[in-house]
Formats: sequence, structure tokens, C-alpha cells
Amino acid sequence: MSKNIFFKNKGPIKVNRLFKSNNQNKDIITDIKTLDKAGKYELTFFDSIKYLESAKKTKASYCLTTDKLKKYIPNNCKIILAKNVLLDLSRVLREFYPFADIDYPDTTIKKPSPSKFKHVKFGNNVLVGNNVKIGKNSIIGSNSIIEKNVKIGMNCIIGSHVIIKNSIINNSVVIQDGTKLGQKGFGFIPSKKINIKFPHIGKVIIDDNVEIAASCTIDRGSVDDTCIGRNTYIDNQVHIAHNVKIGSNCMIAGQVGFAGSTFIGNNVSIGGQAGISGHLKVGNNVKIGGGSGVVKDIPDNQIVMGYPAVSIKEFLKK
Amino acid sequence: MSKNIFFKNKGPIKVNRLFKSNNQNKDIITDIKTLDKAGKYELTFFDSIKYLESAKKTKASYCLTTDKLKKYIPNNCKIILAKNVLLDLSRVLREFYPFADIDYPDTTIKKPSPSKFKHVKFGNNVLVGNNVKIGKNSIIGSNSIIEKNVKIGMNCIIGSHVIIKNSIINNSVVIQDGTKLGQKGFGFIPSKKINIKFPHIGKVIIDDNVEIAASCTIDRGSVDDTCIGRNTYIDNQVHIAHNVKIGSNCMIAGQVGFAGSTFIGNNVSIGGQAGISGHLKVGNNVKIGGGSGVVKDIPDNQIVMGYPAVSIKEFLKK
Amino acid sequence: MSKNIFFKNKGPIKVNRLFKSNNQNKDIITDIKTLDKAGKYELTFFDSIKYLESAKKTKASYCLTTDKLKKYIPNNCKIILAKNVLLDLSRVLREFYPFADIDYPDTTIKKPSPSKFKHVKFGNNVLVGNNVKIGKNSIIGSNSIIEKNVKIGMNCIIGSHVIIKNSIINNSVVIQDGTKLGQKGFGFIPSKKINIKFPHIGKVIIDDNVEIAASCTIDRGSVDDTCIGRNTYIDNQVHIAHNVKIGSNCMIAGQVGFAGSTFIGNNVSIGGQAGISGHLKVGNNVKIGGGSGVVKDIPDNQIVMGYPAVSIKEFLKK
Repeated sequence: MSKNIFFKNKGPIKVNRLFKSNNQNKDIITDIKTLDKAGKYELTFFDSIKYLESAKKTKASYCLTTDKLKKYIPNNCKIILAKNVLLDLSRVLREFYPFADIDYPDTTIKKPSPSKFKHVKFGNNVLVGNNVKIGKNSIIGSNSIIEKNVKIGMNCIIGSHVIIKNSIINNSVVIQDGTKLGQKGFGFIPSKKINIKFPHIGKVIIDDNVEIAASCTIDRGSVDDTCIGRNTYIDNQVHIAHNVKIGSNCMIAGQVGFAGSTFIGNNVSIGGQAGISGHLKVGNNVKIGGGSGVVKDIPDNQIVMGYPAVSIKEFLKK
Repeated sequence: MSKNIFFKNKGPIKVNRLFKSNNQNKDIITDIKTLDKAGKYELTFFDSIKYLESAKKTKASYCLTTDKLKKYIPNNCKIILAKNVLLDLSRVLREFYPFADIDYPDTTIKKPSPSKFKHVKFGNNVLVGNNVKIGKNSIIGSNSIIEKNVKIGMNCIIGSHVIIKNSIINNSVVIQDGTKLGQKGFGFIPSKKINIKFPHIGKVIIDDNVEIAASCTIDRGSVDDTCIGRNTYIDNQVHIAHNVKIGSNCMIAGQVGFAGSTFIGNNVSIGGQAGISGHLKVGNNVKIGGGSGVVKDIPDNQIVMGYPAVSIKEFLKK
Repeated sequence: MSKNIFFKNKGPIKVNRLFKSNNQNKDIITDIKTLDKAGKYELTFFDSIKYLESAKKTKASYCLTTDKLKKYIPNNCKIILAKNVLLDLSRVLREFYPFADIDYPDTTIKKPSPSKFKHVKFGNNVLVGNNVKIGKNSIIGSNSIIEKNVKIGMNCIIGSHVIIKNSIINNSVVIQDGTKLGQKGFGFIPSKKINIKFPHIGKVIIDDNVEIAASCTIDRGSVDDTCIGRNTYIDNQVHIAHNVKIGSNCMIAGQVGFAGSTFIGNNVSIGGQAGISGHLKVGNNVKIGGGSGVVKDIPDNQIVMGYPAVSIKEFLKK
């Protein structure tokens, strides 16, 4: 069970302290994870039939879910019922991770010590937080900020005016000027009085040989992670929301936007200004035309275009 | 009559100095404001029938308008005729406010003095201008710049690489990394030789509990202000042009763009990459689908989608 | 023959060292340029019939092209055949310019010396590279970075958090906060193992009286330059890809995106969020509606709208 290296976990916490409805249960919960990642003593959540396959196989000890969905949860996992799963989840996440719902600027950042980063080249005014690791032959441009616990691999070139927080970056990654990685995503429970900010305890994971151009924003995951696969190239001003997973060898042109929790396969190319709605699955080898608006899943090997995006044949027929 | 705290007013100026056509009139004009805000000794302007209701009720002493529109101006307000209202307005604005048509970087900014900001936490290399006020328990992230006369309330969390100028920010506002607030908007009088830059003497006003994500741009108003209502949440890379007014409890997803002077009601939700044209009125409780292009007013409680945006029923019929 | 002031040229290099297929040829090549700019001892390339007119008139000594296109090259220019022109071009470019395929942060930047820039006003923490030239009465805002060899004219106002590299900026240009100029564009040869990054040896050229608003990105050219004509105004969050040429007196609204190598005439106005595909020619006096997607050439004096963009008449008919 991997530990959260970016947010301090206040657990374990007893079930009856977290859920009044379970006030006799003195078992402990140690952490909160997604259906596929949670294990023993961990809490997961299941709020949409879209995640049925993962739900059936979850190894979590506890699952927060609805009366309607509870039947899909395997027997080894104890049900905790909620009227509004995300509202309860948000509350419980805050118990475990009280500082994950706002991006408090890292107060540990300071000028990097040359003895600690012997084989790293820094521009001027770079600020690095506690426990940051940067591999050899990497370069960090001027005025950039690498917040605490971030890991950057070898041979990476990070531009100037970049901010990286809550992220793990593998080797030979290039990030151009002004890009921001790992900030909290756009997640909250709307409320007329004051919205409830949803804690974001996930991270951003960037695999080898990825290139991210200038002025992009890639939000960290909420409970899950946001992932960019190896050898994927991303152009300027692309916005990638929380929990998005992009495969390897993809090409994402300028100003494309991805809404939250969408899954993109390998070898996918997306034209400029296209938008991909949330919670979708786009298959491998898909081509999405520039300016398209993708609002439903796309199987492997399709070429789509338009708003809403349809197969290229159908688009040309119109 | 409120005073402009961001731009120094060189008034009062005599009418005959401002307008050759009124060369006998030695009355004074003290300031320039919109139809609804101008009062005694103040000049307003009326250049589009869209603002008829405000024109009828203006309390301004003078109004710059056209021969065609002058009949709507109440008797207590003296007419000054113009062939091109905005051209004359731009010229007169420059007389009152000679430094509002270009964003001259604030030369008063410096490291904030701890004694002046006792209960504020600053990251590294923060720069603060003269007469900035920041409420207690607020935090300003590293490399951020807060230009002169800006007011920030209590319990605000401002990220790193943020620039705030010509803005008033209330309490408990969160602004994430890289967002720029209060710069001059995209206003000018086109001219083949050299465009005439339109002075922007307005500000940005952000109400309580607003959250603005990373790398947004919110321009200050030209003569009016740009306003974001309480508890409204705005995702990454959103662009809000001059004079836009967004109500309370709105949700604006990533990469949405608002053209100038548009009015958005309360409880409005707007999907990613939607665009809203200028000078429109979007009612309360409206839902605008992602990727839509809104080109006309929308009454309360509508759900719209498409380009150009139509009611959801009509969109699905197509 | 103009010299590349931003990237050091390792040439001349003998033809037989560059191309195995020409292993007897000990002539030299001194540089690599586009069809219209290459001259004696220089190599050019011709990979698309779109550039036929320039190909017929090239004065280059050598041209990299395909078996199919070689017949259009004039006799004075020697053909070098390639199966994949861009792949070979990329390899040869790297021989001449080994550091142009990644934006290595400029390590020569430092606080500007007041004696070198007597009539320039700098904000705080400005960083300036070797051999930068800035004209008198120009102002550079705080935390901005001007990398080596950049030229900025007189009376320019550059905002804060701006990065300018590989660029030549004429007089009276205004650039607002957070804009990034001259970074490498989105050019590479896809390969499942590791994409081959295309060297970008071009620059950005900004003519007199241009205004560029906040948080734009303008990439430098690959072999050609990216150019913005005089008195053109560009709103916030606009993305301009490599080799784009925009004429004079244009108006580009917020969040517009240009794909690579597109040519825009004079007096063109483009509404917010419009997208222009790559390698197109948009004529003079064209008006493109907000949100449009332009996918083919547009002749002079047209008004177009829609996705894909069609004449306004056709759009309204639908």
C-alpha cells in the first residue's frame, strides 16, 4: 500500500469516528483510495455505474456508496451508505488530509543548496522545497518553483516561470516556460452559502520523454492521480483536469482541454482547441480533429471530428 | 461619489477645454463614469441602445452621445454631441487619466515590510506596491506581485506567480498559481496608422469566497468595473474581459472565455471552452454546455448548448 | 545572407558529411533556410506542393525534396532526394544547430547593469542575457526574463512575468503580464520509441506599435520566423504557433489559436476562441467570427463564421 508523499495522513481513524451511522464499529481505516487501489483497512467509494468493473474487484475493506449501487460491491468489502457519496467522501478526506483542499503555498521553499544538487543546473532565483529530488543532468530555469517532495528524474529540462507541486516526473522530460503542474483541480460540492472544497490528495505523474509546452496547466488528482504516458507531447496552453490519464505516444495540439477523470489511450492525436468531456474513455490510435467537442466514449482506431464529435465519415456527410 | 483609488484624476477640467464644440461653457467636469454611476459635475456616455434603461435614469451632469440617441437623455443632463462617442470618450478619458491606457509596471513595488503586514504570510520574493492592504491570515505565494493600492481581505490564499493590480479582493478568496488580475483590457479605436488605446480606469472586484484557478486572466474595467460575485468558482485558463459582471454561486469550467461588458446572473454554470460574446445578458440559473458559443441574451432558467448556443431541446433535435 | 543571431551555426559542412547518398560531393553547405530565403551555398527544402511558387524561384544551391516534387526545382539548384524530407531536414538541422531542439534556459541571464541600459527602466528582479539590446525609454516589468541576443526597440512597455527569447521587437510595442515569446514550437517527427524533436532555429519578429495582451504564447519559427505585423493587437491567452505570419492592423480577440505556418493578411479581425488550422492563407480585410474553425484558405475581403468556417451568408442560411 503506497504512502501519500505529498499530504500528511492523520489516520488511522476509527470507523465510528468517521461515520455516525456506524457508531458501534471501532475498526480502523488507514487511508482513502480509488476502487482499484484501495486495500485492507482502506476506504474506497463507488458513486457511478461507470466504475462498475473496478467496483466488482475492489480489495478495499470499506466502500462508501449508495443504496442503489451497493449490490455490486464484493462481500469482503463492508458497505457504508451515503445519500451523497462525494459530500461524505469530501468530509472524510478532510479528516485524513486537512490541508489538501486549498493550495497553501509551500513555505519550505528556498534557494537550492549546491551540495544537495551536485549534478543539477539551476537558473536564477529558483526555489526548491524540502525533500525535493532531482536527477543528474537536469536543468531548472529561472524563477521556477519546485515544491516539497516533488521528484524529477534525470536529463529533464524544466523551463523558467514553471511551478511544479505534488508531482513525480520521470526521466528526459521537457517542460517549457510558464507551465503549472500539480495544483488543486476544480472539484467542490456546490452550496449556495459556501461551496465545499473537495480535498485533492492525488498527484501528477509524468512518464519518460514527455514534452509539455508553454503555459499549460495540469491539475493533480483528487483521490486518484493525473498521468501522462511516455513519449506524449503536449503543445502550449493545454488544460488537463484532475484524474485525467493520457497514454503514451499521444500528440495534443495547442489549447486542447480535458475535463476531469477522462481516460485517453495510446497513440492518440488531438487537434488544436478540441475539448474532451469528463469521465470518458477514448481508445488507442484515435484521431480527434481540431476544434472538436468529444462528449462520449470513442473506441480504438476511430477518426472523429465536429461538435459533438462524430466519425469523420458522418462529419463530412453533413 | 466614489474616488478612483488606482488612477490619479487630473480633474476637474472645464467643459470648454474638453470639447471645442462647447467653447463657451466654463462649467467643470470632475470625473467620467458610466450612466448608472455618474452624478453631479460628472460626464457619462451613451453609445448603444442596449443601455437605454440606464440612460433614462442617469444622474450625470453631462452625457456624450449621438444625435440619434440624445432624445433619451433626461433634461437634467446636458448633451455633448459626438460623431464617434468612443473616440471622443477615449480622448477625454486621457485628459483625466493620462496613464490608464498602458499597463506601466508599478515602480513602487518592493519586499513587504513585516511590521506593516503583521498577520500576513508571504512566500519568497513577493513584491508589494505602495498603500497595499492585506487582511489578516492571508497568504501570498512566492514571486507574486501585488501592485499599488490593491486591497485584499482576510483569510485569502493567493498562489505563486500571481499578479494583482487595480483590484479589490474581499475575504476568503482563493487564487491559484499564475493568474493575472487587473491588467488593461482589449479596448482601442482601430486606426490604420496607430490604433488609439482606450484608457482603462476601472478595476476588478472579487467578492467573498470566490475561487479562481490557475493561469486565468481577468481584465479590469474600462470605465466600469469587472466583478465576480461571491462563492463563484472559476477553473484554469479562463479569460474574463473588461467590464464583465459575473453573479454569485456560478461555476465556470476550464478555458471558458467572456468577451467584454457581458452580464452573467447568479447560479450560472458554464461548461469547459464555452465562449460568451460581448454586451450580452445571461439570466439566473442558466446552464451553458461545454464548447457552446453564446451570441445572444439568455433568459433565466434556460439550458443552452451549441454554436451558436440554442436551447438544449433544439440542440438535440438537430 | 543574414546570420542567425540566436543559434550558433556549426557550418560550413560538406555535402558528403551530411548526406551519405552524395558521398562524392565535397561542396560545402553554409546554412539551412526556407525556399525564398536560401541563397548560394545554402540548403533549402521542398516537401509540399503548397510551396510551389517559392520552389520555382528558389536561389538555394541545394534542395532537399522528394522524387515527386524534384521537377519543380530550378536547374541552378541541386536536388538531394529524401524519402521523408522533414526527418532528413531535422537531422541536418541538428548538425548545424545542435542546441535548437530543446529550450535550454539561458545561463547568461543576470541583473541588468545600469551603465549598459542607461535609458531603460527595469522593475525588480529582471534578468537579462548577454548581448541583449533595449532601446531608450523602454520599461521592463518585474520578474521578467529577456534572454540572450534579444533586441527590443524604443518606447516599449514589457509587463511583469514576461519571458522573451529568440525575438526581435521593434519600437513602441506593448506586451502585457505573463506572455511568453520565442519558445520552441510544437514540431517533432513522431516515433513510437522516442519522438525526434525538430530543431527550431527561427525567431519571433514583432513590428512597431503591436500590442500583445496577457498570458499569450508566441512560438519562434522552425526554419522560418514567426512574424506579427505593425499595429496589430492581440488579446489575452492567444496561442500563435511556429512560422505563423500575421499582417498589419489586425485584431485578434482572446483565446484565438493559430496552428503552424499559417499566413494572415492585413486588416484581419478574428473573434474570440476562433481557431485557424496550419499552412493556410487568409487574405486581407477578412473577418472571422468568434468561435469559428478555419480549415481552408480565405480570399481577401471575406466574412466567415462557423465550424468549419464558411461565408457569413452560408452560415446564416443553415
